[in-house]
Amino acid sequence: MEPKTYAQAGVDVLKAEAFVTRLKSLSKRADHQRLWPAAGGYAAVYPVDERTAMALTTDGVGTKLLIALELKQLSTIGIDLVAMCANDLVCVGARPVAFLDYYAVGKLVDEDADQIMQGIVEGCDQAGLLLVGGETAEMPDLYKGGHFDMAGFAVGLVSKEKLITGDKIKKGQKVVGVASSGIHSNGLSLASKLVGNDKNLKEKLLEPTLIYTKPVNEILDKKPEAITGVTHITGGGWRNMLRLSKDVGYKLTELLQVPEIFEYLGRNIEPDEMYKTFNMGMGMTLTTDGDADLIIKTFSEYGFTAKVVGEVTDSRGELVIDGVGARGGAINLKE
Amino acid sequence: MEPKTYAQAGVDVLKAEAFVTRLKSLSKRADHQRLWPAAGGYAAVYPVDERTAMALTTDGVGTKLLIALELKQLSTIGIDLVAMCANDLVCVGARPVAFLDYYAVGKLVDEDADQIMQGIVEGCDQAGLLLVGGETAEMPDLYKGGHFDMAGFAVGLVSKEKLITGDKIKKGQKVVGVASSGIHSNGLSLASKLVGNDKNLKEKLLEPTLIYTKPVNEILDKKPEAITGVTHITGGGWRNMLRLSKDVGYKLTELLQVPEIFEYLGRNIEPDEMYKTFNMGMGMTLTTDGDADLIIKTFSEYGFTAKVVGEVTDSRGELVIDGVGARGGAINLKE
Repeated sequence: MEPKTYAQAGVDVLKAEAFVTRLKSLSKRADHQRLWPAAGGYAAVYPVDERTAMALTTDGVGTKLLIALELKQLSTIGIDLVAMCANDLVCVGARPVAFLDYYAVGKLVDEDADQIMQGIVEGCDQAGLLLVGGETAEMPDLYKGGHFDMAGFAVGLVSKEKLITGDKIKKGQKVVGVASSGIHSNGLSLASKLVGNDKNLKEKLLEPTLIYTKPVNEILDKKPEAITGVTHITGGGWRNMLRLSKDVGYKLTELLQVPEIFEYLGRNIEPDEMYKTFNMGMGMTLTTDGDADLIIKTFSEYGFTAKVVGEVTDSRGELVIDGVGARGGAINLKE
Repeated sequence: MEPKTYAQAGVDVLKAEAFVTRLKSLSKRADHQRLWPAAGGYAAVYPVDERTAMALTTDGVGTKLLIALELKQLSTIGIDLVAMCANDLVCVGARPVAFLDYYAVGKLVDEDADQIMQGIVEGCDQAGLLLVGGETAEMPDLYKGGHFDMAGFAVGLVSKEKLITGDKIKKGQKVVGVASSGIHSNGLSLASKLVGNDKNLKEKLLEPTLIYTKPVNEILDKKPEAITGVTHITGGGWRNMLRLSKDVGYKLTELLQVPEIFEYLGRNIEPDEMYKTFNMGMGMTLTTDGDADLIIKTFSEYGFTAKVVGEVTDSRGELVIDGVGARGGAINLKE
């Protein structure tokens, strides 16, 4: 049976969420008041002094690495790893500064390892990160053959002035959407099952994740108040926008072009499910109170496609996407 | 054939080292001059301002997790994970502040995941770390059954005054050794092959790694100049001491008691190999110019066994260990 949801693809999101909830109660003993509140939980913001904090995040690339392995194209998966972490950092307004990787493999194969590291170095260049360390573990009893896993850890710095808390997102603000390069690094377990053995489509899935950090940092440097919210569209799809503030909703009416790969993946899947799982051609959104032009111009200068895709509404926790439902109607997603 | 070296146990240390060297040249483009030089490469030290820096490190627990899985005793492997990172942070003089974990698993089993996280939370408490985030990934196609992997990322803060660079380690200074709880988290691939199916011995191997951060931080708070070098004894065994300074050597004459498990593991293995692979009962060393009593007293107050085990010599890059070689002679290790 062809899977039609993420759960059917073997990934139990609800179970994972329940685990995270239990984890939070476990670690409640720790004094989390030391952290500065920041939008969307994309990164933990730990103050160094009264004006400056470290932003900390970790991520992996999920099953995208299995596709890379299968196609023996390992040179860009490191870009994905860095992207997943670096894009999270700018969601809280931080400037990425340092990256560390964990790379575990059954048997260290020189060419593979070099390709993977090349990608990480390239990703760090794109993100403005310094690769400062890492751990390479050879574990033949855990990873079969050339199998491997990798995790990234990125650190940014953010001044109190630039910190994005989500509190400034208000009804009527514009939403700028920035185009993705394709599927990026989320929803791959489902996608790879849907494309089956089609090598061309698999290669499309491998397109590296875009790294949006430099334009975001440049805008914040020029005008810290120009951005009220940043969403990195990852697992959970466009619903991620709803993480930034509980007080608002969004209505998106002028969408970016949806890349072909999503048309293919969506043949037998409901639009709701698609927009809840994939980035659907939009890798990042930014909300702004009057500076959409500055945002679009800066992203364009870095080669990204960006446009106003909609606006902030007062329908709390509700994301309306026009024109993508049945017979061109709207769909309505909740967090 | 029973393996007699780490390489025979399937872990190719030389190959891994060559990879790290290539990696360094790859990332040379990055401007590493931004980092503050720190002893032993235990953590990258990235300045936040002129007086304060972040110390950053990542590590895993290696194949110790396979033993934990086999014995279905998962509640302490998280302590090991935190320990491997936190003990590295104090080697550069940093105070551990924040921890993130990456936890990847074939199938999320509630009881297993909870046990693992309990260990991480406990380890963070012991280390003085705040668990601020993490990533949980379910990847059925990568990890079989209950198999999993985990990586830890720890961040510390260090003032310039407390930073340990290794430059102050001089001939004649005393070396204080602190007892380990057993094998800690290094050399497990070799050890688990040596113990075969002996369940009692396997359980001994699972003894959690001791976390030495609090006494080290307390000593540095009282008297920053009391410690000239700190070595976390990990992969590479006692040779780790030689990483701190190229200008000195060490002569160790009054050793701590060697736990039984190492007697067993060493039955058919040369002492050189043992001291190059395992901690041999000593999990950390500290060098000091006159403050051995303060160090020993502070460690004792936290329940650790510590004593003067030898001193710094001017035999560059040479570690002499008395009384452990053939017929009670010395062995001589180089980096």
